[in-house]
Amino acid sequence: MTAGLTTAQLIEKHLPTLDQALDAIRSRAYWSPYPEHPKAYGADGQGVPGSLDAAEGQAAFDALRGRRFELDQPGTDGWSATESSPYGLELGVEYPHADIDVLLPALRAAVPAWREAGPKARAAVCLEILARINARTHEIAHTVMHTSGQAFMMAFQAGGPHAQDRGLEAVAYAYAAQAAVPGSAQWSKPQGKRDPLELKKEFTAVPRGVSLLIGCNTFPTWNGYPGLFASLATGNAVLVKPHPRAVLPLALSVRIAREVLAEAGFSPDLVALAAERDGEGIAKALAVRPEIRIIDYTGSTAFGDWLETNARQAQVFTEKAGVNTVVVDSTDDYKGMLSNLAFSLSLYSGQMCTTPQNLLVPREGIGTDAGHKSYDEVVADLATAVEKLLGDDARANALLGAIVNDQVGARIDAAAQLGEVALASRSVANPDFPGATVRTPVIVKLDGAKPDAEAAYFSECFGPVAFAVAVDSAADAVELLRRTVREKGAMTVGAYTTSPDVERLIEEACLEECAQLSLNLTGGVYVNQTAAFSDFHGTGGNPAANAALCDGAFVASRFRTVEVRRPA
Amino acid sequence: MTAGLTTAQLIEKHLPTLDQALDAIRSRAYWSPYPEHPKAYGADGQGVPGSLDAAEGQAAFDALRGRRFELDQPGTDGWSATESSPYGLELGVEYPHADIDVLLPALRAAVPAWREAGPKARAAVCLEILARINARTHEIAHTVMHTSGQAFMMAFQAGGPHAQDRGLEAVAYAYAAQAAVPGSAQWSKPQGKRDPLELKKEFTAVPRGVSLLIGCNTFPTWNGYPGLFASLATGNAVLVKPHPRAVLPLALSVRIAREVLAEAGFSPDLVALAAERDGEGIAKALAVRPEIRIIDYTGSTAFGDWLETNARQAQVFTEKAGVNTVVVDSTDDYKGMLSNLAFSLSLYSGQMCTTPQNLLVPREGIGTDAGHKSYDEVVADLATAVEKLLGDDARANALLGAIVNDQVGARIDAAAQLGEVALASRSVANPDFPGATVRTPVIVKLDGAKPDAEAAYFSECFGPVAFAVAVDSAADAVELLRRTVREKGAMTVGAYTTSPDVERLIEEACLEECAQLSLNLTGGVYVNQTAAFSDFHGTGGNPAANAALCDGAFVASRFRTVEVRRPA
Repeated sequence: MTAGLTTAQLIEKHLPTLDQALDAIRSRAYWSPYPEHPKAYGADGQGVPGSLDAAEGQAAFDALRGRRFELDQPGTDGWSATESSPYGLELGVEYPHADIDVLLPALRAAVPAWREAGPKARAAVCLEILARINARTHEIAHTVMHTSGQAFMMAFQAGGPHAQDRGLEAVAYAYAAQAAVPGSAQWSKPQGKRDPLELKKEFTAVPRGVSLLIGCNTFPTWNGYPGLFASLATGNAVLVKPHPRAVLPLALSVRIAREVLAEAGFSPDLVALAAERDGEGIAKALAVRPEIRIIDYTGSTAFGDWLETNARQAQVFTEKAGVNTVVVDSTDDYKGMLSNLAFSLSLYSGQMCTTPQNLLVPREGIGTDAGHKSYDEVVADLATAVEKLLGDDARANALLGAIVNDQVGARIDAAAQLGEVALASRSVANPDFPGATVRTPVIVKLDGAKPDAEAAYFSECFGPVAFAVAVDSAADAVELLRRTVREKGAMTVGAYTTSPDVERLIEEACLEECAQLSLNLTGGVYVNQTAAFSDFHGTGGNPAANAALCDGAFVASRFRTVEVRRPA
Repeated sequence: MTAGLTTAQLIEKHLPTLDQALDAIRSRAYWSPYPEHPKAYGADGQGVPGSLDAAEGQAAFDALRGRRFELDQPGTDGWSATESSPYGLELGVEYPHADIDVLLPALRAAVPAWREAGPKARAAVCLEILARINARTHEIAHTVMHTSGQAFMMAFQAGGPHAQDRGLEAVAYAYAAQAAVPGSAQWSKPQGKRDPLELKKEFTAVPRGVSLLIGCNTFPTWNGYPGLFASLATGNAVLVKPHPRAVLPLALSVRIAREVLAEAGFSPDLVALAAERDGEGIAKALAVRPEIRIIDYTGSTAFGDWLETNARQAQVFTEKAGVNTVVVDSTDDYKGMLSNLAFSLSLYSGQMCTTPQNLLVPREGIGTDAGHKSYDEVVADLATAVEKLLGDDARANALLGAIVNDQVGARIDAAAQLGEVALASRSVANPDFPGATVRTPVIVKLDGAKPDAEAAYFSECFGPVAFAVAVDSAADAVELLRRTVREKGAMTVGAYTTSPDVERLIEEACLEECAQLSLNLTGGVYVNQTAAFSDFHGTGGNPAANAALCDGAFVASRFRTVEVRRPA
């Protein structure tokens, strides 16, 4: 790696990548600088110089286990260990516990020099941090796998390059927003025959102060990097408060950030970790501290709403719960539709905020290229598609990963009591990790016209639970879709239809209720996946989230512009 | 004028102006499309085709008085008249009072077609509205004068072209933010030897819904247009709730907007008026309606804080009270400094949110090009400068305007009890409007070291009241400046110094506390004036306001982006 580069050298090194990222967010075409194939990493890899290969990543991860994770940050008053791998692997990592009254002033003190460095230097330093993180993707993959329960390949890609993409995307948005205002201007206002009025004006992007990242259990890096890098790139210091069960991926990211910052001549305390003890719940206390001026949060609606209501001194960006719907009206690729949906329901055991939950199917059935299919046939065929997809245990393990906590398991079992079970969830043994709880999705049939069914499908049932809801018609489905997005929120909406009229109705519903729509996905792109630089994750305009990853609004209020004007 | 142009024709007509505005916000050099000289308007004017001249503007204003102001908007359930001119002129205009349960649904129903028109058409329609408003600047000047109490020339410029500039600036920012996302993208992700994954993606800027503008008494158009046009240009409908004592300027603007919208083929109900009866206080009820998703507010800190706390369903942009400081450390143009400050204190009787209140002067005196001046000399010389500036009653009337309400008058009288009066406020007769209350500024000397003085200078005393606060040193002044901005907020900070060290301290304080700084203004630019496209009005980063006019953050969250993706 490139230790000790000056900011000028870092700018030179990373400017081409930043420019490409800026082009990508403008065109929204496919782009990524971080390879998603594991073989691109390591001494033999063609992609990433200086990166760890699979064996090195495994060794680096093993070396982290069973010991203290040193960070050398101010105010450490003890050590805490709160993680347990969903795969049953003993982690035993202890993290520094911080005296917030010591740590927060250190973060604040680090800010002025970081502000003075300016947007371009900050972007370059952020890109160096991301490059170092990228080089250690094999190591980070294990940390994500053993905290989130994601299968290795998903932990590698979603927790590695895809998360790094989202971080870089945030840096690009942050840079573009700051660069939209020039550093200085000459202002000359004509005064008729008199001399013009002339002023020299200087404009400085100034940060809000300290930003708090409250991480989540399932996607610690993917959901964490956008806020972390958006705030850092706009001049703020960032305090990272990981989910107590998913500390390691963010602790490692914090350590890398601190190393790069120090090497580049800045205070490492611009990024610090706030690990907590079991049951300590420090997020509430941190969130209302006057020093905290920005909060990024992914998690439950209850706590997200609490933050929005109570952390009044901060800009609060939240991603909360939602109920994702797929309208199944008709298709010209029945097989493709079934296999696409089966994959979407199975990936990471449905533990994604983007996984479909309610499949709305007309009770009269649907038209397909394989003839008319009744509601019962559609549901049965989908159940068969899921069974087939997950029939091989090795493949099932690679796709499902592990159940992240006991509540998800309990929810699967409870869902089976809610209606007729079209597909029962089964447990899958994981030969590598006998302690892992691995479960296939349950599909439950519900009649959308029955009021008691609504209690089931009209709230989020996080985990591998899908409801096949029988509706009266496509119009009825669209009405239920609208009401669901408006009242419960949605990160994703999917739809299958060959009818231009129905398509128009669904599009209009998504435009009016503000939800992201994927239409007729039958191939290798799934409704629950979004690509940085091109797809928006959420809209920020329905109850599931007040922000989207990533757009102008995600960065615009993280800094302000101070003008100093004087006679020219 | 150009009645009945299609949106395509409006785009062709206004695109060059929009492009210039986009250039201006990027360069922040001087620019304005709206002439500020009264003689540029009218049939003989060189500047604005089809505009009203002075006599026509006067006649148009007179024709508005003493009758109902018809708007033909849905839900009118009565009429209300709440204005009284600070100049004593009988206005007698009655405005439609709305049944909100009828009016709000009409606004919502108007939104989808406006959303479908797209950002460029919306910008063009907004520019047509502004052009029509501009052509009626002479008429609007009288409406602003007789509601705010501004003198005619200020009402003409600040209420006319300068307000229109701010509206256009908001349109430019709104357009730029929406145009940052392309309308569509082809996404093709390589898959090694397999076919690439290919999607067609469409991106639509969707509005939040209905935006509420809560107007103020002193600058109904200047403070109103930015929010109105930012929301309209991003696809929202806008409900305009004027201050009950300053309805006419905004009612006229609403009527013009409705005319243009209808002519361009949109529902006029995209912009509507919510006038209220005396004491009705409808802002509170409106602000928490679920339909209201954006609020722009200028006014008291108490109600601004209430909005931020209670209107949780809306994005709330506020400009509230602050305490503006000028640090007087040293100068190489003593006379220029005094005359510049005298003008700043006098303009519109200090009834600007940007007027300096606290002048911090070292008790040991200051160095100047005219030799060392003691604290007493500085204050006495400033008093003399104000007296001289306002010595002629005609000039005083032209500069001061009228006191906007009785509370301001009471505040002047109370201020004289707070300390030694260096300059007493005097009443000026206005021969044209004998009913006008015209008052010159009072300057009160306070000792910053005395705790009881702090009660006076450490809160906003809105009106022509300045405190000359004796401080121990420049460093002491900077410390007080910091504390004032942090705890009370500030729209402006001014400073006079020839010392690079003091300048650096003041700049650093403004960067850290987030306040706009004007240094060493001694000519024809004043700390209380900002120019659209170049100067930011407020920072949005201290307690005086949570938003700046105008920047990316002012528009970014007024819309969201909905993506529809489908296989290519």
